[in-house]
Amino acid sequence: MKFSLLHTDPASRARAGLIETAHGLIETPIFMPVGTAGTVKAAHFSELETDIRAQIILGNTYHLYLRPGLDVLRQAGGLHGFNGWNKPILTDSGGYQVYSLAHRRKIREEGVTFQSHIDGSRHTFTPEGVMDIQRVIGADIIMAFDECTPYPCDFAYAQKSLDLTHRWLQRCVARFDSTEPIYGHTQTLFPIVQGSTYPELRVKSAEFIAALGRDGNAIGGLSVGEPAEEMYAMTELVTNILPADKPRYLMGVGTPENILEGIARGVDMFDCVLPTRNARHGLLYTTEGIINIRNQKWQSDFSPIDAACPAPTSRKHSKAYLRHLFLNNEILGMQIATLQNLAFYLWLVQEARQKILSNTFADWKNDMVKKIGKKV
Amino acid sequence: MKFSLLHTDPASRARAGLIETAHGLIETPIFMPVGTAGTVKAAHFSELETDIRAQIILGNTYHLYLRPGLDVLRQAGGLHGFNGWNKPILTDSGGYQVYSLAHRRKIREEGVTFQSHIDGSRHTFTPEGVMDIQRVIGADIIMAFDECTPYPCDFAYAQKSLDLTHRWLQRCVARFDSTEPIYGHTQTLFPIVQGSTYPELRVKSAEFIAALGRDGNAIGGLSVGEPAEEMYAMTELVTNILPADKPRYLMGVGTPENILEGIARGVDMFDCVLPTRNARHGLLYTTEGIINIRNQKWQSDFSPIDAACPAPTSRKHSKAYLRHLFLNNEILGMQIATLQNLAFYLWLVQEARQKILSNTFADWKNDMVKKIGKKV
Repeated sequence: MKFSLLHTDPASRARAGLIETAHGLIETPIFMPVGTAGTVKAAHFSELETDIRAQIILGNTYHLYLRPGLDVLRQAGGLHGFNGWNKPILTDSGGYQVYSLAHRRKIREEGVTFQSHIDGSRHTFTPEGVMDIQRVIGADIIMAFDECTPYPCDFAYAQKSLDLTHRWLQRCVARFDSTEPIYGHTQTLFPIVQGSTYPELRVKSAEFIAALGRDGNAIGGLSVGEPAEEMYAMTELVTNILPADKPRYLMGVGTPENILEGIARGVDMFDCVLPTRNARHGLLYTTEGIINIRNQKWQSDFSPIDAACPAPTSRKHSKAYLRHLFLNNEILGMQIATLQNLAFYLWLVQEARQKILSNTFADWKNDMVKKIGKKV
Repeated sequence: MKFSLLHTDPASRARAGLIETAHGLIETPIFMPVGTAGTVKAAHFSELETDIRAQIILGNTYHLYLRPGLDVLRQAGGLHGFNGWNKPILTDSGGYQVYSLAHRRKIREEGVTFQSHIDGSRHTFTPEGVMDIQRVIGADIIMAFDECTPYPCDFAYAQKSLDLTHRWLQRCVARFDSTEPIYGHTQTLFPIVQGSTYPELRVKSAEFIAALGRDGNAIGGLSVGEPAEEMYAMTELVTNILPADKPRYLMGVGTPENILEGIARGVDMFDCVLPTRNARHGLLYTTEGIINIRNQKWQSDFSPIDAACPAPTSRKHSKAYLRHLFLNNEILGMQIATLQNLAFYLWLVQEARQKILSNTFADWKNDMVKKIGKKV
């Protein structure tokens, strides 16, 4: 994997870059749609490419390990072969899901034991095991196995957890660097900065991780309930330490506003379930603001869902029609809303990139944050 | 509306024809995907056109009348304006749904009173009212308001019901012929032959309806639980009487096999929820036979869902991947299966048409019925 830093905005820390992977280019800043179980819910892969203009999608190690399982994935030639997506894929390490979804988890030095949320079966994730699993999944970018602390989290626990995460990271690096990709394309490992909302822990973690000199670096443990200002402060602190010549990935973030503020603080990569999950509940992110499409006010509004959005279905179909689909619990409603939200998110980061390249990001960002965050 | 009978198979009664409507051409025999509430569930309209190659879709008067309601539909310019489908639409009369879905229905000479299955609100459908509703919906082909008898049905009730259906039909015709389309495109009214499974009633009804000389004629009250042989016998009886120079529509039919047998008996148009409903449960109609995609046997089958099906997603994705989507209750599974089943149905009738035109339908049909009906 290669990262080229193309330009930095003079009035903020926003950057435009280019990541080269074995499955193609990623223009940064980028938003990565979440494809938990090997599918971005309610979106065809052809739509991800042409309507949404996604350049990389996520898969979740925890889910894919449980279903379809490693045997099927290996036979399929990895996740790319299994779902037919030929562009870059990033997989998380399963750490977050073990803490948020699995039952009866127990954290030890060796790793984490847990019960599947699907059938209660017992499993163990270790740093080495998770590297091996992600070799089988075959994503272009894979993540270190860490502990994601909850919010709030007392200092003593955050400190102890961070030390464990760093020891696990060393084991991840050792395993990753001593194994080979299975399917003939290169993979790269991103370490994850933790440290809860404690500046001294974040600084310590960022310095530890910067010193590893990996191809890219991630910031985890944010967007877990803390105030946005704290998320921004931690992000700023960490991006000041992580090397400028490597992409920075803020995990699980966030709202359109969060993403623009993250870009302004030097983040290059984002992922979040918000656009897809909220789409399925009728909450739309649009170039005009946030819309609850179930509201009575759209009953006879025959204007396009979002005339400025690249998704063709958002220009073709009216708000009144989409509202009708949601009131009838029609699958097509979730499909159209998913295309709207993801196309909007990709439009937003692509607009941001153009503004960075033309030295107009900072003002544009301040205007845009006001517009896209308001409920209409 | 204009129908051109292009060719009749010498070895059966199968016909190839062409229907011209204000919204374009329909090549017969044709299958019409069901779009109950103004959407063919889980399929984008662009997919209906390009992947499925649908030429006409259905809407349900009962559902559309309840939601979004006539005010919204009128403001939208009818159903075409509301959902953006610019090809032909056919609406049923709501008769079938009043009997199968609505609560506390009461049939009188004047019409039917019923309670909405959605909110219990009281409504009345009369022959005149249903014509007016279908004027507002604005479909190219609209259906007479009838009583669809259940199976089995005693002779006395079937006879009484048929007489009522005929009196209602006369009221439908009077109302339709004395009103104008609302949106500037022509509409046409199809009467419906009833008579349960009693040959003498079917003959009486077919003669009554043939004498009306409408643009097309429908056969209702079949595929409601009777044996397939009875359905075929009634169909054959009726198509022998209905005029050859008008299209014949067998309502609510059926399996791929039913459709081929209907074509062989002189039917030109079909609709059914089977391909879409079964798709959402993982039952696939393919060129190789019927597949329950949830079966364990597909777990590691990486062959295409249906390599011979026109739907691109069926050639792109494997059976193993589609099975995985269904086991995870992923919406994309329902989307892909819907495209498979509808594209297969349209492929089937389009193949049938080619065989009719080349005088090879009868043998092809006998081979095909064996192949597509078997579980694989």
